[in-house]
Amino acid sequence: MSLIESPPLPAASVSCRNLGKSGLRVSCLGLGTWVTFGSQISDETAEDVLTVAYEHGVNLFDTAEVYAAGKRSSYVITTKIFWGGQAETERGLSRKHIIEGLRGSLERLQLGYVDIVFANRSDPNSPMEEIVRAMTYVINQGLALYWGTSRWGAAEIMEAYSMARQFNLIPPVCEQAEHHLFQREKVEMQLPELYHKIGVGSVTWSPLACGLITSKYDGRVPDTCRVTIKGYQWLKDKVQSEDGKKQQAKVMDLLPIAHQLGCTVAQLAIAWCLRSEGVSSVLLGVSSAEQLIEHLGALQVLSQLTPQTVMEIDGLLGNKPHPKK
Amino acid sequence: MSLIESPPLPAASVSCRNLGKSGLRVSCLGLGTWVTFGSQISDETAEDVLTVAYEHGVNLFDTAEVYAAGKRSSYVITTKIFWGGQAETERGLSRKHIIEGLRGSLERLQLGYVDIVFANRSDPNSPMEEIVRAMTYVINQGLALYWGTSRWGAAEIMEAYSMARQFNLIPPVCEQAEHHLFQREKVEMQLPELYHKIGVGSVTWSPLACGLITSKYDGRVPDTCRVTIKGYQWLKDKVQSEDGKKQQAKVMDLLPIAHQLGCTVAQLAIAWCLRSEGVSSVLLGVSSAEQLIEHLGALQVLSQLTPQTVMEIDGLLGNKPHPKK
Amino acid sequence: MSLIESPPLPAASVSCRNLGKSGLRVSCLGLGTWVTFGSQISDETAEDVLTVAYEHGVNLFDTAEVYAAGKRSSYVITTKIFWGGQAETERGLSRKHIIEGLRGSLERLQLGYVDIVFANRSDPNSPMEEIVRAMTYVINQGLALYWGTSRWGAAEIMEAYSMARQFNLIPPVCEQAEHHLFQREKVEMQLPELYHKIGVGSVTWSPLACGLITSKYDGRVPDTCRVTIKGYQWLKDKVQSEDGKKQQAKVMDLLPIAHQLGCTVAQLAIAWCLRSEGVSSVLLGVSSAEQLIEHLGALQVLSQLTPQTVMEIDGLLGNKPHPKK
Amino acid sequence: MSLIESPPLPAASVSCRNLGKSGLRVSCLGLGTWVTFGSQISDETAEDVLTVAYEHGVNLFDTAEVYAAGKRSSYVITTKIFWGGQAETERGLSRKHIIEGLRGSLERLQLGYVDIVFANRSDPNSPMEEIVRAMTYVINQGLALYWGTSRWGAAEIMEAYSMARQFNLIPPVCEQAEHHLFQREKVEMQLPELYHKIGVGSVTWSPLACGLITSKYDGRVPDTCRVTIKGYQWLKDKVQSEDGKKQQAKVMDLLPIAHQLGCTVAQLAIAWCLRSEGVSSVLLGVSSAEQLIEHLGALQVLSQLTPQTVMEIDGLLGNKPHPKK
Repeated sequence: MSLIESPPLPAASVSCRNLGKSGLRVSCLGLGTWVTFGSQISDETAEDVLTVAYEHGVNLFDTAEVYAAGKRSSYVITTKIFWGGQAETERGLSRKHIIEGLRGSLERLQLGYVDIVFANRSDPNSPMEEIVRAMTYVINQGLALYWGTSRWGAAEIMEAYSMARQFNLIPPVCEQAEHHLFQREKVEMQLPELYHKIGVGSVTWSPLACGLITSKYDGRVPDTCRVTIKGYQWLKDKVQSEDGKKQQAKVMDLLPIAHQLGCTVAQLAIAWCLRSEGVSSVLLGVSSAEQLIEHLGALQVLSQLTPQTVMEIDGLLGNKPHPKK
Repeated sequence: MSLIESPPLPAASVSCRNLGKSGLRVSCLGLGTWVTFGSQISDETAEDVLTVAYEHGVNLFDTAEVYAAGKRSSYVITTKIFWGGQAETERGLSRKHIIEGLRGSLERLQLGYVDIVFANRSDPNSPMEEIVRAMTYVINQGLALYWGTSRWGAAEIMEAYSMARQFNLIPPVCEQAEHHLFQREKVEMQLPELYHKIGVGSVTWSPLACGLITSKYDGRVPDTCRVTIKGYQWLKDKVQSEDGKKQQAKVMDLLPIAHQLGCTVAQLAIAWCLRSEGVSSVLLGVSSAEQLIEHLGALQVLSQLTPQTVMEIDGLLGNKPHPKK
Repeated sequence: MSLIESPPLPAASVSCRNLGKSGLRVSCLGLGTWVTFGSQISDETAEDVLTVAYEHGVNLFDTAEVYAAGKRSSYVITTKIFWGGQAETERGLSRKHIIEGLRGSLERLQLGYVDIVFANRSDPNSPMEEIVRAMTYVINQGLALYWGTSRWGAAEIMEAYSMARQFNLIPPVCEQAEHHLFQREKVEMQLPELYHKIGVGSVTWSPLACGLITSKYDGRVPDTCRVTIKGYQWLKDKVQSEDGKKQQAKVMDLLPIAHQLGCTVAQLAIAWCLRSEGVSSVLLGVSSAEQLIEHLGALQVLSQLTPQTVMEIDGLLGNKPHPKK
Repeated sequence: MSLIESPPLPAASVSCRNLGKSGLRVSCLGLGTWVTFGSQISDETAEDVLTVAYEHGVNLFDTAEVYAAGKRSSYVITTKIFWGGQAETERGLSRKHIIEGLRGSLERLQLGYVDIVFANRSDPNSPMEEIVRAMTYVINQGLALYWGTSRWGAAEIMEAYSMARQFNLIPPVCEQAEHHLFQREKVEMQLPELYHKIGVGSVTWSPLACGLITSKYDGRVPDTCRVTIKGYQWLKDKVQSEDGKKQQAKVMDLLPIAHQLGCTVAQLAIAWCLRSEGVSSVLLGVSSAEQLIEHLGALQVLSQLTPQTVMEIDGLLGNKPHPKK
């Protein structure tokens, strides 16, 4: 069994999917920026990444720096509401914080509106009616075009939908959720049901499990990796934990499959995310244009992923979620 | 049987009809500009056409150049949304494109609002709820006063109406559809039912089948005609096709009837469109003030069109649509 | 029977009533300006009239000239929508004309909003849903605070209310109707039912039947009277018609009652209007401050109008409307 | 039994509670300013008070002077609508006065919006539908984020909630009510039911019964006290009335309990208010930073208030309200 990783498949032009069952067309690979931008990479690198992304057809950005790159109507900007400040009134999903938080975001982004505003994490302290009314308000004010949830439970999303129907408000269009080879339950078991029943799609993040899924971890932590950065001790601990070591072993087991497909393990892992039912877009967190180009190659893998190969991966991972009886 | 065409009846003052069952009064002859303006005729000619139209009581314009001619409240400006740009987010009927597309139109037209915004072509990729909510949004924002559909199927229009009723949104007021002697099914069979049941009226275009219905085609293509223009090869092909030749023969058959009414075949064909049930306005596509004046004469024909004559025309055409059993 | 009219009772401070069952408090005597202002009296006189009115507690103005006199929040400005221009789109109650007509009014009045916008005359050409949606729209846009009807039939007002209920829109608060000794049916028989069932109140105009009810007509037409003005030939004809002469005879019959109450016939006629059920305000049309002061004295008569006297008047008039069986 | 009052417990950091069942987090002690600011204390003292309050975690202000102290999003500003001027249209809860009154408030406060607008006192002259529609309107216009009631009866609040549900409008989030040792019925018997059923919370004021509950009244009226101020004769009368004297005797009876808890009677009385069910915040009316610091110490008492002590206080007061059968 060869442990030599193939060179990456070249980047392909990114195709679009509808965001959930809405009419908004988003690129199936998007650019998440919560990890890499700001602290980790230089402005120059960031600009490079954005340009490469935009030129390859990426139109979904978890950031606003892109706006120099093309016409505003040609891409999709998102923002998140939850933590806005130290004060008790500056967090959570009260009407006050949803409105003030979004206005604050727009000011920072120097934008008139975002395409999607996400309610980041559910807020048990705020009644669902208040949240959905406030989201509908910001949409009716023209501050956002759609709204979605992030890290919400399936029942909470269903409650939001139900409130929207009860009070003739605007329902959410998608949920942002973590999804990768080792985190499968929610995106594979719960969200497809929401997609089919109420049209809420998935936008997934962390397709490489914060960088864990790549052949670069061979037992030791490389210097250039995110886990060496201050504030990421938790990630380092995770990587070096018993579970972390088992997961890395499984990543190694994927190498032959990747080799067979002529791609890298990262490309395989991203393509594997893209084939999940109801997934509108997979957000990438990259720290260089080279890395982005590698990840964009995942699209070429997708077309080769046969049910047979997917079953093989499921067998190796041994964590395929099953419906509860 | 004389093949000499009568000289045109003189132009008459255009009367108004309600747009569908709405309260908006539109002239029963309107000015469509999708074909002739911009590429085909000079600015001077365009201005002439607009002036003549406005002075004869035409108040429905598929263009904005008219706004110099009279008070904004005295006429009806429309615009269409569908193709807005190269990007996937710049076409179709997503909330994003409806809003951004209309704002783009208004900027180009230098207008604060249009009277009617048309959703050009239906979009199977956008859920009907999203389309009707977005149309209601732009109306509530004051960017448009009414909305309509263009080239939609009867079932789609009915679905839009149904969504408007379900969510207490604003229903469409009219459908823009092609209608002429050789294209009858939709406007004569399907739209009258919509008109009677839900008040959606018809605004029809191409009353002369892109210029096919006129006595000027006598087998050869005249130099001054649209079919000689680059980009209209499809029209030239159509004219010279087997079907095209048959249709031209039928146009020739109408000459005696036109002669009897003392009008041109074009005037007869336009009057014939105007007498269809539920038709609020017939959009004319003209390339000169003279042609417009000829077409405006159709109103004089309308009052002479007896059921007998209409039956005679139906007999000649042999394509009267019949209800399905 | 004395034919000498008493001198007028002095003007009293005008009390307020709720406009229909709304929370808006309007003075029970208001100032209508459709007749006297503009053409008939000088700007100086108009200002005098407004000042006297405002100082006596009148807060309901069918005009905007008053705005120099006090704080905007201390009075109620109304405007009417129906005839806006020559074009077909500039009249009636289409959404287009309601919005454009009101914006036009506000520009002329140099106001940001009116308190009440009236839909003047019903419009059989505009569907009721469109009218009520447009009225709700202008209220939601902040261009008006309430809306009412003018010269509508009871069934039409009920239909507007029904549409408001069906689509969760804003119902009208009042109807403006003609009401005087010789025009009783609608205000006395039909509107009280609307007031009780749906809270729509009456604002009445022409309490003196365009000046017919006053002792100044003693068979010949005085020079200073409105009937001598150009354009009022119809009024002159009416006064001198058979019916007009009978009505003037009845006015003479009221003199003894007025004399007994120590007031003028005009004061009696106005007080008589004020005591009708569901009447929120009676609009006065005056041409001088003196005339206004006389009319304001009607309030003193009101408190003396016993059921006995009202029955006596009904007996003299012989036109008390009765419920249909 | 010692009559020597303990020195006050030191001020504690104020914790937050949800306003009713809404998502808005308000400090459980707020700053009411209807009594002390403006007339009674200097601007300097007022600024001191605000600074001390804000630094101790108070975020609920019945005033706008605070806005220099921190970020707008970090606190909650409220205003009240009822009395706006002399004119009949400038008071009550008509749509006109709610809108004009709030706009007037915002101008005086130089704010774009308040967090909560209170309908001060119910208005039997304005229909509930009009009130709730107008409150929803000002919220949809962005002039306020939430609305509440003040001095309303429980049935009126329930009617407002019912109107909001019937017409899909925004329900109120809280009621402002007087609550102290001698005024218990509404806050303790009626509002908890509203809190549980419809989520409307209580914001209470006058926790010290206008200064009556404090050991400073020992039979004679101190010079520095509010009762010596012009316009407060009613309070002086109350204090010196038979009832007032009995109440002061009861306050003296609380001294031993306060002594046992190591706090002042005022601190005990405020803590006693805070432990009531459904109370989101108790508004303090202070005239100096020292007094505020004393009152903030009530939070330390709250954690020591055992059911046993509360029963003991109820026994002493003899006015615990009981459910009607």
